[in-house]
Amino acid sequence: MAHAPNTLNLVADIGGTNTRVALARGKMLLPETVTKYKNTAHSSLQDVLKKFIQEQGGVDTSAACIAIAGPVRNGQASMTNLDWEIDLETLADASKAENTAILNDLQAQGHALGHLPPESETQIIHGTSIEKETTRMMVGLGTGFNIAPVFETPNGRFIPPSESGHISLPINTEMDRKLSAHFDAQFGFPTIEHALSGNGLENLYNFHCCGVEGAAHKNAATIVADCEAGIDPAATRAVRHFVQILGSVCGDLALVQLPFSGIYLVGGVSRAIAPHLSEFGFLDAFRAKGRFEDFMNSFSVAAISDDFAALTGCAAYLESSAHA
Amino acid sequence: MAHAPNTLNLVADIGGTNTRVALARGKMLLPETVTKYKNTAHSSLQDVLKKFIQEQGGVDTSAACIAIAGPVRNGQASMTNLDWEIDLETLADASKAENTAILNDLQAQGHALGHLPPESETQIIHGTSIEKETTRMMVGLGTGFNIAPVFETPNGRFIPPSESGHISLPINTEMDRKLSAHFDAQFGFPTIEHALSGNGLENLYNFHCCGVEGAAHKNAATIVADCEAGIDPAATRAVRHFVQILGSVCGDLALVQLPFSGIYLVGGVSRAIAPHLSEFGFLDAFRAKGRFEDFMNSFSVAAISDDFAALTGCAAYLESSAHA
Repeated sequence: MAHAPNTLNLVADIGGTNTRVALARGKMLLPETVTKYKNTAHSSLQDVLKKFIQEQGGVDTSAACIAIAGPVRNGQASMTNLDWEIDLETLADASKAENTAILNDLQAQGHALGHLPPESETQIIHGTSIEKETTRMMVGLGTGFNIAPVFETPNGRFIPPSESGHISLPINTEMDRKLSAHFDAQFGFPTIEHALSGNGLENLYNFHCCGVEGAAHKNAATIVADCEAGIDPAATRAVRHFVQILGSVCGDLALVQLPFSGIYLVGGVSRAIAPHLSEFGFLDAFRAKGRFEDFMNSFSVAAISDDFAALTGCAAYLESSAHA
Repeated sequence: MAHAPNTLNLVADIGGTNTRVALARGKMLLPETVTKYKNTAHSSLQDVLKKFIQEQGGVDTSAACIAIAGPVRNGQASMTNLDWEIDLETLADASKAENTAILNDLQAQGHALGHLPPESETQIIHGTSIEKETTRMMVGLGTGFNIAPVFETPNGRFIPPSESGHISLPINTEMDRKLSAHFDAQFGFPTIEHALSGNGLENLYNFHCCGVEGAAHKNAATIVADCEAGIDPAATRAVRHFVQILGSVCGDLALVQLPFSGIYLVGGVSRAIAPHLSEFGFLDAFRAKGRFEDFMNSFSVAAISDDFAALTGCAAYLESSAHA
């Protein structure tokens, strides 16, 4: 056996395409153990975990925690486009670990805060708030949109779930009013996620192409690339509009959650958009809250680039619950 | 001395007009001690508390907690229209109590949940969620608008602060779009509180009077009364619009906070509006969240009528922190 029994924990991050699995000693990921598996090549969570355990010399882990890009309720998780059974019983059966936990991936990334390498964090706005250990807020921009507030309570970190991607899209400008009518016709109810996600950027691009002869559908990566190359005015308009809606939404949710210790953007779409936030007016949109404009200066905003943050978060969560 | 020393706690609720003060034994308010003082007749918090303590025979309390209709940060509170110094030091000095706490009044009312007389709660929507001890959400409708999520963590109840009244007003209908333009011209940035508060109802009434010859300004109580009497169509339109915006806002904030154990409406305006929620379409507006329409059936909504809920909450908070 390559590892001594019951000294390590198993952590996993199940995304839309890949599942990443690793071993952790306390809060520390063992980087040499991080392994990526294509979901389509496996029939179940058991299948993936058993393969990983075998590859690690039949490791006997003490606890196991997985992060899921989807809602988790009562120890059960569900993901669109993946029919794996994901619940505590399946996890315990596959991992043979004594303690198990399932977290939403944004909650997991929230548990990673404070345990990530400093270079994985890029500051976008320096807020004036000097409270260093109060509330933070994760904002996840990827296949979907969601947030997770990260509360530091007298008894430790607490990160409740949320479905914030499905609330009303904020309408602030004449352009937003047109977008709202456009989404209304297309989706019935215009939500944040209709604009702020991979698909959302594509929706915005289609909207900004309206009336342009011969405009073709483009995927999110191409829209960002064409904006950066300066070769498609509709792509530039779409990215600018995305950034301004993101500023407004982050500002609204900051007033709801009061993250005086900072807002953290995570996820694939956030990594692609982060370099364009300042050029396209993120800060102005974030601060445009009427008489609360000055108050908005309290909040810091940073982007997190660590691809393994959810794994680190799972490790930190197991460690903190073991000591609770 | 009328009360034995160090057996009772002092609790107070400082509202915009009156301050209520009472004694509590553990979580139980002593109803015969509840006393109401007009703020304008007193120059400071010390002034009010010293008078109360004297009236109670010079009671020597063990702990003191006050609830404030305003933001609380780092043990300091501030209220519009009241220049009293309200901080932990002043409270300790005035009460001579060993332990002190200051809560926002919505947070205090959240701590009262589970300790109020059953008759103070009127069910408005029966949700399908069967989770009885998860998250609840307080929605306060009075001079202002705010929410407080009430989380049940493994280590006890946790109620973070919020400034949710100042986020973007949701825009769902053609009428909302007109209202948004109207508020935009008047206030610069249309927020929830511009519609959902005492002043908010007056703003809505003015909007629905547009173009009506000789329309006079009416206060919130008159608008509700005239709607109930059926003598002013603009008042009826204003109350209906208020109820529909409230439904939409409660639905959005429910998706953010996931209160599977219920939503609780509190505050003076909520007590006045609660009887009209079903007649004016609260439920439809609450559920109108596109593909999340079915999911919205999870949530229960109730109105709380207890005028002393914040006092009970202060007592419960002191009791729970004494045992933490």
